Amino acid sequence: MHPIIKTIEERQTTNLFDPTRTISDEAIHELVRLGTKAPSSFNLQNWRFIAVRTPEAKSRLRKIGWDQPKITEAAVTFVVVGQLADHQLIAERLRPAVESELMPQSVATAWEGAGKALYFEQPQRQRDEAIRSATFGASTLMFAAEAMGLSSAPMIGFEAEAVSEEFELAADEFPVMLLSVGFAKPENWRQKPRREPAQILDLI
Amino acid sequence: MHPIIKTIEERQTTNLFDPTRTISDEAIHELVRLGTKAPSSFNLQNWRFIAVRTPEAKSRLRKIGWDQPKITEAAVTFVVVGQLADHQLIAERLRPAVESELMPQSVATAWEGAGKALYFEQPQRQRDEAIRSATFGASTLMFAAEAMGLSSAPMIGFEAEAVSEEFELAADEFPVMLLSVGFAKPENWRQKPRREPAQILDLI
Repeated sequence: MHPIIKTIEERQTTNLFDPTRTISDEAIHELVRLGTKAPSSFNLQNWRFIAVRTPEAKSRLRKIGWDQPKITEAAVTFVVVGQLADHQLIAERLRPAVESELMPQSVATAWEGAGKALYFEQPQRQRDEAIRSATFGASTLMFAAEAMGLSSAPMIGFEAEAVSEEFELAADEFPVMLLSVGFAKPENWRQKPRREPAQILDLI
Repeated sequence: MHPIIKTIEERQTTNLFDPTRTISDEAIHELVRLGTKAPSSFNLQNWRFIAVRTPEAKSRLRKIGWDQPKITEAAVTFVVVGQLADHQLIAERLRPAVESELMPQSVATAWEGAGKALYFEQPQRQRDEAIRSATFGASTLMFAAEAMGLSSAPMIGFEAEAVSEEFELAADEFPVMLLSVGFAKPENWRQKPRREPAQILDLI
């Protein structure tokens, strides 16, 4: 079986982490470097990651994270931050692609216009895009974690406004999820069953 | 290099697909089966996939998809549909896990309560969750596609209301993205550069 397929088939949202095992800051950097290879709209990369890995910082997060033990027991819990999509950043985010002659300037300019058409004065779309981008980033980071022998748990149980305040998110940012990463204990649940494709797939 | 890392490093959003190559309905089923191994909040699986793969259906989608050629040139373009998070579905979605003794009934009941606390009469959170779940599903489907030798392109350039109408989405559904999957032509762009982790990562 292809290792990607094997990971997809066997991955589970880990509930119990080994609290005695940590991961290095270098490994955290690598997780985020790989996570941000994910796609984002117009390559906006409208995400940010706060790696909460000291006992003191984890404790602050757990208090506003429904007191979930995995926040403190995992080696690191990321606050995965989404940034409201801002078309004015597209030129800057595409500049390295243009300068390396990977993308013509004309395409970058066209993308800037398309981004303005989508997002300018469209707060719901700006927020939607922040969630999409941050979730693509988190998902890719989770795959990277599996490849590095680590397990993960995305979480939505937290007080969003308290997290924004406690971790000083900017006005155009909000927490899209928490994501614990670390070493799974052996006694975790297996992957929960899913509905069959026939229930959720239409072919036309 | 681990095959997952290699895929993350090399994957690109494919712009040019070989329009002469199709994929079987069985392969489309398998892509969706694997994609829906993705995590979702309380295992709600609040997603649906419309596989647009006939020339006629692709043409209808392209007209309301900014006329993007990849919609018709890829073997299949999925309308990745998000469903507003509804806590009343949690019991049903967890039942197979309870019946297989993977999860105690008490946990399933507690999750139902937590889901109600999060989503009941909270339309913004219901929508946010639809985007998160559908994006996790799309991302996992994209990894499965890579493992199967296919390439992909998520797209946000489409008229959302027209897509909902044309493909008869339910009142609690909306299109989260389009996702083309097929065989890449050799002359595609490489992956576009990303910002460095130092620009987007805080360690605390």
